[in-house]
Amino acid sequence: MASGAPATRQQSSKDEPYHLIYWPGIPGRGEHIRLVLEEAGAQYTDTAFTEDGINEVLGFVKGKVPDDGINSPPLAPPILEHGDLVISQTSNILQYLGTRLGLVPDADKDPNGVYRVNALALTALDGLSNEPHDCHHPVATGLYYEDQKEESKRKSEDYVKNRLPKFMSYFERVLGSKSSGSGPWLYGSALSYADLVLFQCVDGVKFMFPKAMAKLEREGKHTKVFALHKAVAERPRIRAYLDSPRRQRYSNGIYRYYEELDIEP
Amino acid sequence: MASGAPATRQQSSKDEPYHLIYWPGIPGRGEHIRLVLEEAGAQYTDTAFTEDGINEVLGFVKGKVPDDGINSPPLAPPILEHGDLVISQTSNILQYLGTRLGLVPDADKDPNGVYRVNALALTALDGLSNEPHDCHHPVATGLYYEDQKEESKRKSEDYVKNRLPKFMSYFERVLGSKSSGSGPWLYGSALSYADLVLFQCVDGVKFMFPKAMAKLEREGKHTKVFALHKAVAERPRIRAYLDSPRRQRYSNGIYRYYEELDIEP
Repeated sequence: MASGAPATRQQSSKDEPYHLIYWPGIPGRGEHIRLVLEEAGAQYTDTAFTEDGINEVLGFVKGKVPDDGINSPPLAPPILEHGDLVISQTSNILQYLGTRLGLVPDADKDPNGVYRVNALALTALDGLSNEPHDCHHPVATGLYYEDQKEESKRKSEDYVKNRLPKFMSYFERVLGSKSSGSGPWLYGSALSYADLVLFQCVDGVKFMFPKAMAKLEREGKHTKVFALHKAVAERPRIRAYLDSPRRQRYSNGIYRYYEELDIEP
Repeated sequence: MASGAPATRQQSSKDEPYHLIYWPGIPGRGEHIRLVLEEAGAQYTDTAFTEDGINEVLGFVKGKVPDDGINSPPLAPPILEHGDLVISQTSNILQYLGTRLGLVPDADKDPNGVYRVNALALTALDGLSNEPHDCHHPVATGLYYEDQKEESKRKSEDYVKNRLPKFMSYFERVLGSKSSGSGPWLYGSALSYADLVLFQCVDGVKFMFPKAMAKLEREGKHTKVFALHKAVAERPRIRAYLDSPRRQRYSNGIYRYYEELDIEP
C-alpha cells in the first residue's frame, strides 16, 4: 500500500515504512521523493497528510527536534526517516531510496551506475528545479515575490531564453546517447530515479513557463525529453498516483505561475 | 605523489590515477575535489595544470567529446575520469572519491554514514558555495557581474545578514551535536569529505565577505566552525597542498572579492 494515510510508527526494521517530512500544501522538493516511493509501491507516511504534519516539519526547521546521538540534525526539509535513520537533502534521499527500491542500476552488473544516475538527477535538480525557484526568488528566499518582482522578471527572461533550452537540450543529448540504451530512459535502458526527477522537473516547468515549454514542444528539438515525461506519466503506479488526492497541486512552492513571468522566449 | 603534473594516462585499472577536468585558473568547485585527493595522497592529474587543459574542459562543455557508450555525457565541470568512468557533479564526485579513499564512515560499522556525510556536504555546498556564487550572479550566469551590480548588492546584503549566519549557526549546531562525536569533525569523530567541503566553503566566504566573517568570528558564536577550518588547514597533506603552487588563488570564480559587496552586516 502506497498511501499518505498515517501508519503506525515502529522501531527500526527492514519492513519499516518510510516517513517523508516535507511542507504540506505544495509538491515542492518532496515530490521527487514521493514519485520514487509511489513507483516502487513502498509503504510510507507523509507530513503533507498526517495530523499536525506542519508542526513536525517546524520542529526540524526550528532545531527543536532532540539530538538523537546518531543522526546529524537536518537544516531543512525534505527529510526522510526510515527506522533509526534521519537524512535530508533531496538528491541524497533519492539515492538512498533508489538503491533500496530498485531504481538504480544493478550493483553487481554496473557498480558505478549509481553515480551516473546521481549526476543526472543532480543536473536536472540544478537547472530545472533550483533555477526555476530562483526565478521567483532571485534576491532573497526570505522576502516575498512581490518584493523582488523586477529582478524576477529579468531572471525569468534569461531563464526561458538561455537556461531552459540549455538544460532541455542537454537531456535530449543524454537521451540520444548510446549510454541511455533503448527505450525512453536516461541511462542503461532501464527506469531509474533520475527519470522520475526529470519527469517532475519537466512537469513543473510546464506549469511555471507554459509559453516557453509550448514553444520548445512545437519546435520539435526535444522530442525525447517530452516522450520521457509522457512515459513516466503512463507508468501504472505513477498514473494512479497522479490521479489520486495525494498528488498536490502546484501553488506557492518551487514551481509557481505568475503571468508576468510566463514569457514567450 | 599528489601532483598536478601530468601523469601517463592508462586504461582502466585499480591503481589508475584520477583525472580532474575543471576550469584552469580558479579554485572553484574543483577545489573540493582537489582537497579530497590531496588529503588522501591520491595520484591525480588536473586540467588546471596540463597542457591544453582548457581545451579538454571545452570539449566537454561544447559536447564535442564523443559518446563512449557507457557514460552519460556531462553538462559541465567538475568532471572526474577514473579508468572507464566519467562522472560529473561536485557532490557526486566527492561521494565516489570519499568512498574509495576512506573519507566516509566505515561501511561495515555504519552502512548509512555515507548518506549522513553526503547531506552535510550538500548543505554546505548549497549555502556556502552556490549562494555566494549567486551573490555576484543573481540574474544570469551568462551576464557579467557589471551587468547585475544592483541586484548583486541587494542579494549580498541579504546573504551576509540572514543566510550566512543561518548556515554558520547550522554547522555550529551539527558540530555541537552528539552525532559529531569527539574532536573537531562534523560526523562520527572522524574526518570525512564533508569536513573538507566545509573548510573550503568557510575559506572562500572569508575571502569574499571578510567583514561579515570577521564579525561572526568576533562574536564568538561559531567557534566550532572556525576551529574546524583551522583543523583542516593543519592536516599535514592539506598544509603542504595549501603552501604549494597547486593551490590556485581566488579570482573570478565562485568566491570573488568586490569591495561594494563586502558588506558589514
